[in-house]
Amino acid sequence: MEDISSYVQKNKERFIGELIELLRIPSVSADPAFSQDVLNTAEAVKESLLQAGCDHAEVCDTPGYPIVYGEKTVDAALPTVLVYGHYDVQPPDPVELWESGPFDPVVKTTEIHPEGAIFARGACDDKGQMYMHVKALEYMVKNNTLPCNVKFMIEGEEEVGSESLEWFIKRNQEKLKNDVILISDTGMISNSQPSITTGLRGLSYVEVEVTGPNRDLHSGLYGGAVANPINVLTKMIASLHDENNHITVPGFYDKVEEISAEERAEMAKAPFSIEKYRNALNIDEVYGEKGYTTSERSSIRPTLDVNGIWGGYIGKGAKTVIPAKAYAKISMRLVPDQDWVEITELFKKHFESIAPQGVKVEVKPHHGGQAYVTPIDNIGYQAASKAYNDTFGIIPIPQRSGGSIPIISLFEKELKSKTILMGFGLDTDAIHSPNEHFGIFNYLKGIETIPLFYKYFTELYNSDSRL
Amino acid sequence: MEDISSYVQKNKERFIGELIELLRIPSVSADPAFSQDVLNTAEAVKESLLQAGCDHAEVCDTPGYPIVYGEKTVDAALPTVLVYGHYDVQPPDPVELWESGPFDPVVKTTEIHPEGAIFARGACDDKGQMYMHVKALEYMVKNNTLPCNVKFMIEGEEEVGSESLEWFIKRNQEKLKNDVILISDTGMISNSQPSITTGLRGLSYVEVEVTGPNRDLHSGLYGGAVANPINVLTKMIASLHDENNHITVPGFYDKVEEISAEERAEMAKAPFSIEKYRNALNIDEVYGEKGYTTSERSSIRPTLDVNGIWGGYIGKGAKTVIPAKAYAKISMRLVPDQDWVEITELFKKHFESIAPQGVKVEVKPHHGGQAYVTPIDNIGYQAASKAYNDTFGIIPIPQRSGGSIPIISLFEKELKSKTILMGFGLDTDAIHSPNEHFGIFNYLKGIETIPLFYKYFTELYNSDSRL
Repeated sequence: MEDISSYVQKNKERFIGELIELLRIPSVSADPAFSQDVLNTAEAVKESLLQAGCDHAEVCDTPGYPIVYGEKTVDAALPTVLVYGHYDVQPPDPVELWESGPFDPVVKTTEIHPEGAIFARGACDDKGQMYMHVKALEYMVKNNTLPCNVKFMIEGEEEVGSESLEWFIKRNQEKLKNDVILISDTGMISNSQPSITTGLRGLSYVEVEVTGPNRDLHSGLYGGAVANPINVLTKMIASLHDENNHITVPGFYDKVEEISAEERAEMAKAPFSIEKYRNALNIDEVYGEKGYTTSERSSIRPTLDVNGIWGGYIGKGAKTVIPAKAYAKISMRLVPDQDWVEITELFKKHFESIAPQGVKVEVKPHHGGQAYVTPIDNIGYQAASKAYNDTFGIIPIPQRSGGSIPIISLFEKELKSKTILMGFGLDTDAIHSPNEHFGIFNYLKGIETIPLFYKYFTELYNSDSRL
Repeated sequence: MEDISSYVQKNKERFIGELIELLRIPSVSADPAFSQDVLNTAEAVKESLLQAGCDHAEVCDTPGYPIVYGEKTVDAALPTVLVYGHYDVQPPDPVELWESGPFDPVVKTTEIHPEGAIFARGACDDKGQMYMHVKALEYMVKNNTLPCNVKFMIEGEEEVGSESLEWFIKRNQEKLKNDVILISDTGMISNSQPSITTGLRGLSYVEVEVTGPNRDLHSGLYGGAVANPINVLTKMIASLHDENNHITVPGFYDKVEEISAEERAEMAKAPFSIEKYRNALNIDEVYGEKGYTTSERSSIRPTLDVNGIWGGYIGKGAKTVIPAKAYAKISMRLVPDQDWVEITELFKKHFESIAPQGVKVEVKPHHGGQAYVTPIDNIGYQAASKAYNDTFGIIPIPQRSGGSIPIISLFEKELKSKTILMGFGLDTDAIHSPNEHFGIFNYLKGIETIPLFYKYFTELYNSDSRL
């Protein structure tokens, strides 16, 4: 039997080439203009699962974009790993800031990726990290080292709220039955210090609309006498944070999980350079909630950010207008034990209540999800830890991430199993930004590490069940 | 000799038809895509001046769009009236809110315009009001009743700051020599109560840019830890007004002209219904600077309004991004004796000074102009007052307008003559808004009233100079 690392070395070029082909398809789920591309990507993923050795794979219809399902059964008595990932990607805009086409993948070396990185939208989030699992399966099947059963559930709506996923899971409880869920859609600290994400923030995403006069007005004739929806919107948004950058929505912090000084001290041990952080972003200073470090602000604390704002004349030149309407897209990152539905209601109630006379304000809830924490005494976590230790030669650090994968708490609720987040990306990979990329070292290291997770998880599972 | 009103009645259909042809040309000066249309409009205006009876008319090149000049000399010993107007128009957007094409003029009756109104961009501002002067000249020339000399100066950059006008005036002092400047680019109270604008607000228009991180960021990984340019921009704009809606830019009010209680009481006599005002705009309440009435807020007080704002993801769906940049277009309406250049500097200095750490802020001055006031004892004002009294049967009320015609103070400085603002539009004509229109009653009444201004002005001028 051939060992995984030599198999990866031998097939390296093919693995990179196959991923590049997948990245060429612009599967932007947020924009209907790309809907055919999204569908084509689902087909391509199904094909790759069959070629990797799944007994069966299919493109399953949903009310939205389809979910690709695949499975390889070794023995019903053995545990089953369910791999989740997504084949859709974020919109590429602002396109003008990309150094190469977002859907025209190129391999370039960078300071952090001396062995090269693949630049394309979705390279890291999540086509690249999802495809590591496909190639890991290929190795295990080809070499008869697959120690357990495996199922794949790859969706196409993760970047727009996974709206069809719950519908699918509720209707396929038996089919999706598993002992642990494995996801690579997060990052790690660095290529020399791997980490495993043990916590994710929840999300509440809303759109707000401020309506003033029934038509755009001449700012000379009406300026100063009528509430200007843009000025009003800026005042309302500004009021959502106090002078300490605490969020002012009443009740917002009521259920926020209190983290002990010990835990905070433990987290603070993770290597972090504020200097490098500032330089990487070219900012003179960080900014955030008083009383917390940058790492804490972006992991264990809830936040509120405007993701988009628009109103009035935004074309070339000048137009002296008071617009009839102004809009903003606002998202809140939530922590355990905030409930996203409750927070969304609190926000809607508060934001509509602070509307001044002279305007009408409407808050439209968009989507959201709960925060999540994995206990590190879980055998899934332990298996992942041992796998990283083998391939990186160092024990991974458990870490809370600021991002959100809202569907994880849905998995726990519906499928009754824990999720392990084996991420191989880096914070500097620019996911959701222009010039997203994924290190070739990380891509191949992921393919090497995953089979070891299967090995250790099955061992721990069996010894566990013998107790 | 035929009297003006019967001449107008006889030629009514032709007058409307000619204006409609002029309105068909989309002379949007703010958008380079329409540059050929702007040039074509200048030619059309020149032709109309020659047909109306000018001895001479020409399209004069400038560094920007050309200025149409025309003249009719009766006797060098007689006074000269210089008519100013503009043939360019505001952008039509938002186009989807127009009930008929902005450049496809239609005549419809409305509650306020039972005799019909012409709906098109520029119908009132300013093609329609400018063309009244062309048709008034036609009448006076045809009937040998032109009592003085007349010159026309019709520009094509009024909606974008009249940048070439100063250049042109400075080079044509002799050619533009006059005794009074006549402009119809303002409104009046109502068709039963005419008014003459004796004051205009000045303007300072700027664009601001807030730059945060060097790229768009994932709001999950960076949210709460990095200054979000949109959140920062909203806080900065919100801080520009205090709880009484006073503008907080230091020094902003230092030179604001103080209006006596008597003057304010005099202005308060102008008929105004807050009820009708609210209903016309479909707002539940007015909004503005504490201690002033709606009429005062929109005439004798300076203001600050955001005319446009944009940043982040503004497409369909959701994108959880912290954008690298956010922008706003901001304009300030100024009153006598605020200097627009000084106010622009005060704003720039203040706005850049309140930028928090973590972002860079840049203020780009756009354009502006000084406020203006016409004394009502001026013979030009008296002539206009008598003219309105003859055609409307009621003495017009002197009124301050909130709008700006920045070039008027330039005229006074360079050409040493006063400007009389004989406006015939109504506030409800929706200038700068979708469905702009101009009442046929107002259009024809203007054509009837203007020759009377010439008559009275010449009489008063002669009796004056005999003193």
